[in-house]
Amino acid sequence: MKYPKHILSLIDIMKRFPGVGNKTAERYIFQMLDWQPGQAKEMAQAILTFSEKIAFCEECGCMKHDNNTCIFCLDERTTSGVLCVIASPKEAYAIEATGEYRGLYHVLGGLLSPMDGIGPEKLKLDQLKTRLQQDHIKEIVICLDATLEGDATALYLKKELTPLGKTISRLAFGLPMGSSLDYIDGNTLARALSGRSSIS
Amino acid sequence: MKYPKHILSLIDIMKRFPGVGNKTAERYIFQMLDWQPGQAKEMAQAILTFSEKIAFCEECGCMKHDNNTCIFCLDERTTSGVLCVIASPKEAYAIEATGEYRGLYHVLGGLLSPMDGIGPEKLKLDQLKTRLQQDHIKEIVICLDATLEGDATALYLKKELTPLGKTISRLAFGLPMGSSLDYIDGNTLARALSGRSSIS
Repeated sequence: MKYPKHILSLIDIMKRFPGVGNKTAERYIFQMLDWQPGQAKEMAQAILTFSEKIAFCEECGCMKHDNNTCIFCLDERTTSGVLCVIASPKEAYAIEATGEYRGLYHVLGGLLSPMDGIGPEKLKLDQLKTRLQQDHIKEIVICLDATLEGDATALYLKKELTPLGKTISRLAFGLPMGSSLDYIDGNTLARALSGRSSIS
Repeated sequence: MKYPKHILSLIDIMKRFPGVGNKTAERYIFQMLDWQPGQAKEMAQAILTFSEKIAFCEECGCMKHDNNTCIFCLDERTTSGVLCVIASPKEAYAIEATGEYRGLYHVLGGLLSPMDGIGPEKLKLDQLKTRLQQDHIKEIVICLDATLEGDATALYLKKELTPLGKTISRLAFGLPMGSSLDYIDGNTLARALSGRSSIS
């Protein structure tokens, strides 16, 4: 016997979330049965508000907050002279949370991945080049995943951006904080070794 | 820096799902940014439809399907003479899926759990007793979790229902199918031993 139609269609929709299959979707939905009256409607309303309010800055591609000016494009950031290239808007928040960076951002909108049909034309490269022609940007920090796709995109960016004559840097590779050498994979250890620095 | 308000409030609401914390809620919501236009609205609509359409049978407590008659209370089930006591409406679907059972159901609405303030008065016991006074029910099958709460509820039901003079049975305990003795816990093995049956 199958669940009622309105549950089956909600299960199908819930499965769009990453890592959610039939069983998890069922757990979520049956948990909703125990919610206070109105809580499910509140969730529906929050999703609607989210889908209506979500907006991205035309300049940097980051998410816009409540007002219309982009808080990632403020003048104080422009004067820093640094621009961080990221793959998705979410990463800006992780970088901000470190407290180490107060520069500009540029969202590429993905990583090169020929297998998934994502070539350079799918990324916001032209906008990036246009922005970089502004004199005030001195350094470009490539903040991309340490994966095959991230590496490929970083190499491509280096090739494309070198003619602009700016400093191009990439996030350091090495041991994550708190890690034990016993559990570190060989590739990470090799990168940590080749990137070793003298203790001052 | 915090996410925009409409994202923060959606994160808080998503965390109501079992096992979903900040990180998972963020993953879900940032995944929604990649959805086709309209898919988020479709989800909001499905949740609304779900919260409006969900209805339970006044007799057995199971979920009602599209029409107004409860498919768990059909005449063909009544004539079977068996009533299965379950804790929540979801379990009826798992039992139906076995193909071994075509009787009636009664949803208790929970399990006894003094720690969580769930005493006998919170369970649908009076309705159960009223239903059992009908002559056509010959056997009561207690289909509850093999946990402390399930055991307590089963014992309580046995005490309360014995005066009615019906056969009372409970799901068998033992090795789950496909399990290896190496990985079976001692309690399960002990129950499987004491419940052993002769090979005919």
